[in-house]
Amino acid sequence: MELIVLNTVWIVIASAMVLFMEGGFCLLEAGLVRTKNAVNVSMKIFVDLTVGTLAFWLIGFGVMYGKDAFGLFGINLFGNPDHISLSIPLSSSAFVLFQLGFAVACISIVSGAVAERMNFKAYMLIALFICTILYPLTGHWIWNRDGWLAQLGMKDFAGSAAIHALGGFAALAIAKRLGPRKGRFNSDGSANVFAPSNIPLASAGAFILWFGWFAFNTGSTLDASNTSLAPIAINTMLAAASGGTVALFLTMKKFGKADPSMTINGILSGLVSITAGCAYFSEWSAIAIGAISGLIVIYATIFVDYLKIDDPVGAIAVHGFNGVFGTVAVGLFDSSQGLLTTGGISLLAIQLLGALVVITWGLIGGTCIAKICEKTVGLRASEREEDEGLDMSYHGIPAYNELERFTDIPTNFYDFEETTGIVVAPVSNKKIAH
Amino acid sequence: MELIVLNTVWIVIASAMVLFMEGGFCLLEAGLVRTKNAVNVSMKIFVDLTVGTLAFWLIGFGVMYGKDAFGLFGINLFGNPDHISLSIPLSSSAFVLFQLGFAVACISIVSGAVAERMNFKAYMLIALFICTILYPLTGHWIWNRDGWLAQLGMKDFAGSAAIHALGGFAALAIAKRLGPRKGRFNSDGSANVFAPSNIPLASAGAFILWFGWFAFNTGSTLDASNTSLAPIAINTMLAAASGGTVALFLTMKKFGKADPSMTINGILSGLVSITAGCAYFSEWSAIAIGAISGLIVIYATIFVDYLKIDDPVGAIAVHGFNGVFGTVAVGLFDSSQGLLTTGGISLLAIQLLGALVVITWGLIGGTCIAKICEKTVGLRASEREEDEGLDMSYHGIPAYNELERFTDIPTNFYDFEETTGIVVAPVSNKKIAH
Amino acid sequence: MELIVLNTVWIVIASAMVLFMEGGFCLLEAGLVRTKNAVNVSMKIFVDLTVGTLAFWLIGFGVMYGKDAFGLFGINLFGNPDHISLSIPLSSSAFVLFQLGFAVACISIVSGAVAERMNFKAYMLIALFICTILYPLTGHWIWNRDGWLAQLGMKDFAGSAAIHALGGFAALAIAKRLGPRKGRFNSDGSANVFAPSNIPLASAGAFILWFGWFAFNTGSTLDASNTSLAPIAINTMLAAASGGTVALFLTMKKFGKADPSMTINGILSGLVSITAGCAYFSEWSAIAIGAISGLIVIYATIFVDYLKIDDPVGAIAVHGFNGVFGTVAVGLFDSSQGLLTTGGISLLAIQLLGALVVITWGLIGGTCIAKICEKTVGLRASEREEDEGLDMSYHGIPAYNELERFTDIPTNFYDFEETTGIVVAPVSNKKIAH
Repeated sequence: MELIVLNTVWIVIASAMVLFMEGGFCLLEAGLVRTKNAVNVSMKIFVDLTVGTLAFWLIGFGVMYGKDAFGLFGINLFGNPDHISLSIPLSSSAFVLFQLGFAVACISIVSGAVAERMNFKAYMLIALFICTILYPLTGHWIWNRDGWLAQLGMKDFAGSAAIHALGGFAALAIAKRLGPRKGRFNSDGSANVFAPSNIPLASAGAFILWFGWFAFNTGSTLDASNTSLAPIAINTMLAAASGGTVALFLTMKKFGKADPSMTINGILSGLVSITAGCAYFSEWSAIAIGAISGLIVIYATIFVDYLKIDDPVGAIAVHGFNGVFGTVAVGLFDSSQGLLTTGGISLLAIQLLGALVVITWGLIGGTCIAKICEKTVGLRASEREEDEGLDMSYHGIPAYNELERFTDIPTNFYDFEETTGIVVAPVSNKKIAH
Repeated sequence: MELIVLNTVWIVIASAMVLFMEGGFCLLEAGLVRTKNAVNVSMKIFVDLTVGTLAFWLIGFGVMYGKDAFGLFGINLFGNPDHISLSIPLSSSAFVLFQLGFAVACISIVSGAVAERMNFKAYMLIALFICTILYPLTGHWIWNRDGWLAQLGMKDFAGSAAIHALGGFAALAIAKRLGPRKGRFNSDGSANVFAPSNIPLASAGAFILWFGWFAFNTGSTLDASNTSLAPIAINTMLAAASGGTVALFLTMKKFGKADPSMTINGILSGLVSITAGCAYFSEWSAIAIGAISGLIVIYATIFVDYLKIDDPVGAIAVHGFNGVFGTVAVGLFDSSQGLLTTGGISLLAIQLLGALVVITWGLIGGTCIAKICEKTVGLRASEREEDEGLDMSYHGIPAYNELERFTDIPTNFYDFEETTGIVVAPVSNKKIAH
Repeated sequence: MELIVLNTVWIVIASAMVLFMEGGFCLLEAGLVRTKNAVNVSMKIFVDLTVGTLAFWLIGFGVMYGKDAFGLFGINLFGNPDHISLSIPLSSSAFVLFQLGFAVACISIVSGAVAERMNFKAYMLIALFICTILYPLTGHWIWNRDGWLAQLGMKDFAGSAAIHALGGFAALAIAKRLGPRKGRFNSDGSANVFAPSNIPLASAGAFILWFGWFAFNTGSTLDASNTSLAPIAINTMLAAASGGTVALFLTMKKFGKADPSMTINGILSGLVSITAGCAYFSEWSAIAIGAISGLIVIYATIFVDYLKIDDPVGAIAVHGFNGVFGTVAVGLFDSSQGLLTTGGISLLAIQLLGALVVITWGLIGGTCIAKICEKTVGLRASEREEDEGLDMSYHGIPAYNELERFTDIPTNFYDFEETTGIVVAPVSNKKIAH
């Protein structure tokens, strides 16, 4: 049996698991926002997986992995992997599918940070922009073998920089431009927190993300015979465990409560920060990196609040700051080139440059697309839509109707179409029957 | 290493993923029905996975894959795969397990359409019938190499016809006989919609279904060395994405709202419609088929309403109509025999015949079992049970007790058994403590 | 291609699925407890996966699989698998990761039985104890090839004894010492049941557990070329199905209601009881064992109540009693050595001894750690904490805030840190904004 057979099966399974992470983003975000916006965040994830998928397949993949021009971008179209010379035998559409999962994850990072006040059509435009331009460009620079950062020797195994830091800093720029949710910051400089609507749902999301992350990192080998595969898996586990442990104990010590959303974000921070170097670290380094990321996420959350930028789920702290940390950590802990492990400085310099490039491009790209939305469909929901909740405003339906048995709302739900004489499908949801 | 080793591992993993789809059906249906029936739909899925599994293993598998009699049915028993000459080496009990996942999915399709008003015992009878007769018969015709439709050359790679169209049209017949939920249609011909109880839960179900579908389609190769494996996976993804995209934009345009349940059903329709030909289509065909299925689901939903048939989750439109479309689409888009791709008409004719056979058998079989239920255990819940909700009526417990902290219901929950002198297990749930 | 490549990929995927079972435990337990404690059970699962993971990696793994001393314990440290001579080629860190999933599952069994009234810090201590001493010791005896029970020939393929019975009886001892939840038992000897808060959530947990269990059992081959792999998978399915079927019908017959939590526990009991011998049984034996386990779980639940031990989720009946049954069932049904299948008595004797050892060690270990907690951090939550709910007491946040749109609670959520002059992260949650 040839290796290509196993590699194809392996990457198809890994792709399914990575794409399943979208379910994790959805439940995590739906659980952390207020009830009145839980449908909206779910619908945004469906936008990522539908509109985003088509956009990346049609355009983004070719910009990222197509034939290189100037080290800057690719010039192919239509999910065509023929120009890629993979170092290992693998059925090429499995590679495209796996990359799709990565692109879609990048949008979903932004989704969380802009929750509860963005115009739904603006979100669609942003998803298109991220999948066709924002992500494929840095992806090209870092992962296309002819990309300029790849040529310099930047290491980003599964995407702490290319996906997480990029998504996180684009999210920061867009959230800044979008402004905070109404009532989030007080005039005296203090802040209010809106209680998450559903902690068990958010937990479910975290477990799905964790599950998928094993495929995210180990699948990035693209090769079952890669001897780093098992070490990557255990590093992923250990970093998540130590990130969560530090966040858990720190919140207990600092605030007297073991905070669930911060513990979850500590776990996710461990996962984000190990992603760039999961194949290059020892297990002890993985534990150390996870632990540091658990510290970073708490102080980065405070810092984002200090900037008066409103991030309902902590995506900027988790993905942005820890994505950068993970990228730099490769320069510090890499087994063969790291500063702390070998005394070498050159890899660290390249990683710092790469991180700076990603931050800059994320901020510029995010600001541009936010401005484009402002000039076209409008970036922000109206005050009335925000007050009512985006669920009713954009989707005509609340997330939970569990109280229906206590209410008695008369309704004639369907529209009656004059032209056809028949009743219309259950999509407008103007009123609620019970 | 021999291929059989990889194939066995591959099909065991794929089976686990396909069986996990039952969790997807459960959450999707529990989220789309009213709160007072959410436990009941969950319990029906557990019936599928327990009673249905045993029934298919004991009888159905042999009817489907046993030694053929007259091209019509098999004559073995007890999950015995010895009579099957699989074209590839694979440990045979992995094949039985994978087929179990398919049989159980067929019942769960019916489950959604009959939700909120069926007698629980009738549902058990129907599950038995589907797993022993209804599904194994058409399965035999299409997938047993000696089946009469297989002999004619019908192509149904992973079951748009054998599973989805069959389940969808059996559901239509049973739902018709069962009648609509109380208050669903008005005397003036208009219709009311009952608000889904939990959209994030339904979304979670959709993600699980999507995840499992990768195994549903690619696992149907039964062979890791099948070179269509990766193309099947990307076709599955693209069809789902384009089905969801079309449904999303159409609801926005037609009703001014981006409707979550219709978007989810658009995604599922893309998945259903690609299932028959996922191994035979180009990627562009997959996108086109998905897009058409996104149109079909909306108009089929309207049409089912027009027939005054009540389908609380849209299963008839998703699985029935798009199952038929997917079957026919093979005749149109098949790379080597399709009308649109090659000009050949013969495959299309066979696919149309096969679709017609499945529709007919689904309607007949569904009507028969519904009548049998009427004559025996009773098909429909009593009006009182329906009003109270099937959760309390059949299961003695509501789905959500989140309000408990605001209520104060005294209770003595346990029955006291005179015979043993000890209290009885927490199963009767007559009253609720808090 | 060498077998080691496939084995490594296989065990990494299986590990991800086993670790995902933690999500299953979380949702199952969060759904079965009262709303006011749903965050707390989730946080306990996160403790298992973070603190528990680090503890097992640092210490437990070496106690279990390290170089043997006296047949009683291992003497290595730090997740180092070098002393293990695996019978098949497999990248060793994949083995460590897979074992991590098992250790963490053992704690999560205890978690359910002690829900709703344990001091959060005591739970942390207990998690540490289980991962470093309790589980690794019996694990060493049974699974380390130099362990004394292994030397006697005890068979426990995937851990009915080593994980489930141990966890279940440790849970019994700790729950006994902890005492019942306030209001659970009346002075006249009768008992009250607290309604589960969220049945669909509990169902979701059951599906995840079932999904992961396929990897739990088949992954325990540690070898893709093991010809028992597919039989293990189908046995796992059949036992779950028959366990669930029996529990379902028995509750319908006995109480007139098809009880969801008992049906779920019947399914889980089938899974627990098949785990020890899944590789050694025929399919008919698997069905029989599952069916018996469905009976056992109901009467064991009644028995635990009779002992006035409070187990909010039924973990003692499911994991403890059926773990013992599964262990003994190997002695009865084993294809080559079982009493019923071959007339041989010696294996049964060894299995009975092994079960007795595990029960004893579980009870002793559980009692010891409970006493240690009493003397140090305190075992039980204060009455006020229990009344208020552990969610607010320990985590400062309720599980569900779905009512927020109907309430109007003024808040100033953030603490203001005098030292830094900036507002503090959203972790203390003293009040809830909306």
